[in-house]
Formats: sequence, structure tokens, C-alpha cells
Amino acid sequence: MGGTNSVFGIVNAKGEILHRGKIETNIYKTAEEYVEALSAGINTMIENSGLSGQIKGIGMGVPDGNMSAGTIEFAANIPWANKTIVPLAKMVTESTGLFCSLTNDANAAAVGEMAYGAARGMKDFIVITLGTGVGSGIVCNGQLVCGHDGFAGELGHVIVRRYNGRLCGCGRSGCLEAYASAPGVARTAREFLETRQDESLLREIDHRPITSKDVFDAAEKGDKIAQEIFEYTGKILGEAFADFITFSSPEAIILFGGLADSGDYLMKPIEKSMNENILHIFKGKTKLKLSELPNADAAILGASALIM
Amino acid sequence: MGGTNSVFGIVNAKGEILHRGKIETNIYKTAEEYVEALSAGINTMIENSGLSGQIKGIGMGVPDGNMSAGTIEFAANIPWANKTIVPLAKMVTESTGLFCSLTNDANAAAVGEMAYGAARGMKDFIVITLGTGVGSGIVCNGQLVCGHDGFAGELGHVIVRRYNGRLCGCGRSGCLEAYASAPGVARTAREFLETRQDESLLREIDHRPITSKDVFDAAEKGDKIAQEIFEYTGKILGEAFADFITFSSPEAIILFGGLADSGDYLMKPIEKSMNENILHIFKGKTKLKLSELPNADAAILGASALIM
Repeated sequence: MGGTNSVFGIVNAKGEILHRGKIETNIYKTAEEYVEALSAGINTMIENSGLSGQIKGIGMGVPDGNMSAGTIEFAANIPWANKTIVPLAKMVTESTGLFCSLTNDANAAAVGEMAYGAARGMKDFIVITLGTGVGSGIVCNGQLVCGHDGFAGELGHVIVRRYNGRLCGCGRSGCLEAYASAPGVARTAREFLETRQDESLLREIDHRPITSKDVFDAAEKGDKIAQEIFEYTGKILGEAFADFITFSSPEAIILFGGLADSGDYLMKPIEKSMNENILHIFKGKTKLKLSELPNADAAILGASALIM
Repeated sequence: MGGTNSVFGIVNAKGEILHRGKIETNIYKTAEEYVEALSAGINTMIENSGLSGQIKGIGMGVPDGNMSAGTIEFAANIPWANKTIVPLAKMVTESTGLFCSLTNDANAAAVGEMAYGAARGMKDFIVITLGTGVGSGIVCNGQLVCGHDGFAGELGHVIVRRYNGRLCGCGRSGCLEAYASAPGVARTAREFLETRQDESLLREIDHRPITSKDVFDAAEKGDKIAQEIFEYTGKILGEAFADFITFSSPEAIILFGGLADSGDYLMKPIEKSMNENILHIFKGKTKLKLSELPNADAAILGASALIM
């Protein structure tokens, strides 16, 4: 479930999407109307597939999803859930007759990587999602870490700059998300361009705000400032990862989401910084990996893995 | 197992210690000799107790213990284990005929709190040990978090001061342990006394190094600098705890060890700082508690809980 569309599919145990469907998310006034439309879409898909009776359950990845409670809670971008707690898993189960489990997007990504992606065979790993925000899905002992309230894994809001840190959307200052999200990278670009005098392709973008994609494109063309923006971002991520490792000593940290597509421009500085900052007993033990879920299908695959 | 003595006991399911014994830890040249003496002591205790055949297993809390592997690894203070990896659990099992599981002291404290102490009924909590060092035992989903290598939970080595941080025993700078351990508090005392001019009972201690116990005693007598030393320590701990909560959203953080006996001098500032620094979705949810294991018996109880 995204703020605009909800996509769904039938996934087999190999992680292949056999059938697909889609409804809009935010044209409904109430959760009941949304669930009715969603169930109709899912039921039609199942009937057309000829797989009735073979569906094991429904996994959902939803913004502000609480896995322990099966609820969606105060989801800012969902009009029918932005001021309340909706027992979505229970409603979908009642409406479809199928077991339903839900979690947030980052946790869905983590179980997706465990079932079909870069974390196959692992019992201890962390997925970091680098997109509009910075999210995380943490797996310890082969299980998602949900915490006592269902909201564990907010590593985008670890404080990485205690003094003079950037203001974050959460209202506090110095969060990882304020530096390592796509808007964080764009902000680093603005700061670098303002405080430095050297040439950069990014200076040619004066008719609209610079995006993290612009920084990547410029880095690809050999732009030094653009490459240093990734180095700065990677340095902060690597420092944060070294701290995360003291917590759960994961076999791997896996990067997922738009910014992760920046490849070595981001990965090399992260790896360097992580190695420079890590406690000696963990040195060289935790792999840094990119997601192995296909971008376009990651949401459906991750959600389905909740049932696998 | 401590660096000087190894204490052991027979513990029942209520957490009562029925029989006790003790051997020295560091008079042996090899692990084999140590295990032989330990097994002899344990076997004698069991025979004398009349409980032969009723013992479920042996739990051990050991420095640098690796729970996943059942080993003690490069333990700096144990002469027969300081340069190697000793398969201690396996050796004790072979020597006693009883199942043996081991972990490090902080993890043993965590399972002890879960079985008999402040974490009874909890599935998600963190124990922070405040002593010569700062250690941690993390429980998620009712299980100890050991990590892929058995060494998770080194929260004393999270970086709390990224710039101009104090040098830590680990060789890096700015670790929590450099501020919030007993020696860290003593160091804060020295810094405060050097950089400030106001009166303090602590200035009368000039014939030997100030200890954290001196700071507590002075605070009890109303000494303002001593109380501010605890406020400074609590502020840093509270900031760190707010970050830990973003990771695993624990129901409680439980303080264990010598410094935790400082009570409200430390607890109040921690609570204030934690609340000031916490992400809004976690506000007011995580309890701050003191250990409920009796100090003198905590080591035996914690280790025994590995078997419970």
C-alpha cells in the first residue's frame, strides 16, 4: 500500500508473481470502503487465476503498519487512517476469509530479502531503506524485531549529529534521515554549492530544486562535488552502521531503495567509514550488500514473504 | 566466572540458591586444569546436596563468552584463555555429563532479570550493566540477541560524542563506556574539579584517586558538584537510551551493576534526558527500571537462568 496506489499479486514459494492487480488507495472516505474495494480486487484476481483454495494468506506492507497489532496507525498520507488506529489485518481477514498479516514497508523489505533476496539463509541482518525517508527492518534470530509496541526499527531517527544537527521531519535535530535520505542528499548538495566556489555541473540546475538523482547523474559525468556529496553521505551512514553493529552484530547490512541505486559512489564511502569506525571485535565480519529484490516488484514480494 | 573467583550454585525454578561452591579462576595453567577443578567442585556440591539426577543443566556467565559457539574467546583477564578460543561449554559437558550453556555477564544478567527479576513477563527489554565497563544484554521476541557471531550487545561502545570524545579502552574515542562506567564518572569528577572553582567535598580527596563511590557519598551529603556529575552522566545515558529505543523499542531498560546503586541521583537525569531526546512515537512507552536481582547472587542467578 502506497499513498496513491495499492498493488497486489499472487506469489508462489519461489518468489514469482503469477497474477497482479491494483486499486487506488486514497479515493476512499473510510477504511471500510477501502477494504471492500481491496477485497473485491483480490477475490477477482484469485477467481481468475484458478488458484482458489490454494492461497495460504495475505501479507501487506503498509505505511505506519504495526505488525504486533495488525493495525495501521495515524498514517499521515492515508486520508482514511491519518487520525486513527485501523485494525486493517482483522478487517481484511473478515472480508476475504484469508489469514492476513501486515507490517511497515521496511520490515516487509526485510522479510522479502530473507525469503527471496540478499538475506537468503541469514538469521541476523538489517535492511536500511534509503528513499524519501530512511527506514529499517531488523531481523535477529530469524525473526523480525518489532518491539513491545510493534514499532521497533526506526534507525532513520538515530541521532548522528548531536550538536548543530540538521532539523529532521520528526521535529528533532541531527537524525540520520536528515542526511541520508534522498532529500538529505539534495540538501547536502545545496550546502556544498553555497559554501564552496569550485565548478560543478550541479550549478547549471538553477530553474528547479536539485534532486539526489541530479547528484548521481553529475557524479556519473565525473563531477567532483557530486562525488564528494556521496562521500559525505556515505561517511555518515558508515558511522551509523558501526553503531548499529554493536547492537545486533548482523551478518549483513542490506541497502534498499532509490538512493541504493547510486552504487559504488555511495557504497565505497560507507564501507570505508564503517571499517574506520567499527569496534575491533566486529571488524570485517558484517557484509555490506545491495538489495536483491527487483525494484518494481519489491513491495509485493516483501509483503508476500510475511506469509512464507 | 570472574577474573579471580568462579562461584557456582544449585538454583531451583523459583530462583532460590540451595547450595553454593567456589574455586579460584586464575591459578590454572590450562583450560583443562580449570575445567577439571570446576567439575570436581560442581560434582561434590551435587553429591552433598542429594539432588543427583535432578540437575537440568549448567549455565555459565563468563567474560568474553560466545553463546552461539559455547566458547570463551581471548578473555584478557583469564590467563588460560587470553590468547585463544576455548570450547568451554563442550568441555564442561564432557567433564560433568550435564548440558552446559554459557554467555557473557551482561547477557546472563538479562536472562536472570527475565527469569527472576525486573523483566519477568517481558519479551522485549535491554539490560545495561554499569560497572568497570558498560555492557548490555538485549532481549527481542523473548530471545537473547547474540548476533551472527555471538557477540551482539556491545552498547557500551556506541559512539555518544563523535567529536572530541574521550579516549575509550577499546582504542576509539567517544564511546558510552568512557562516560557512563564507574571510571568514566571518576573522570568526569576530575574534569569538573579542574575546570570549575566552586567548593566541593570532592576537593578534600587529594591523597588518592577519586572514585564513583566518592561522588555518590558526596552527592548524599548535598554536594552540588557531585550531583551535577551524576546529571552529566545521566544526560549522556538518556541520549543513548533514546537511540537504543529506535532500534528495538523495548518495554523496559533495566540498569544493573555498581553505578545503578546511585539511585535517583542517576535515574532522574537519565529519565529527563531520555524523554527530551526520544522520537515522538516512543514517548512515555519504555520504562526505566533498576535490576531486581540481589547484587551478591546476581551472577549465579543470571547464569542459571540460561537453563531455565
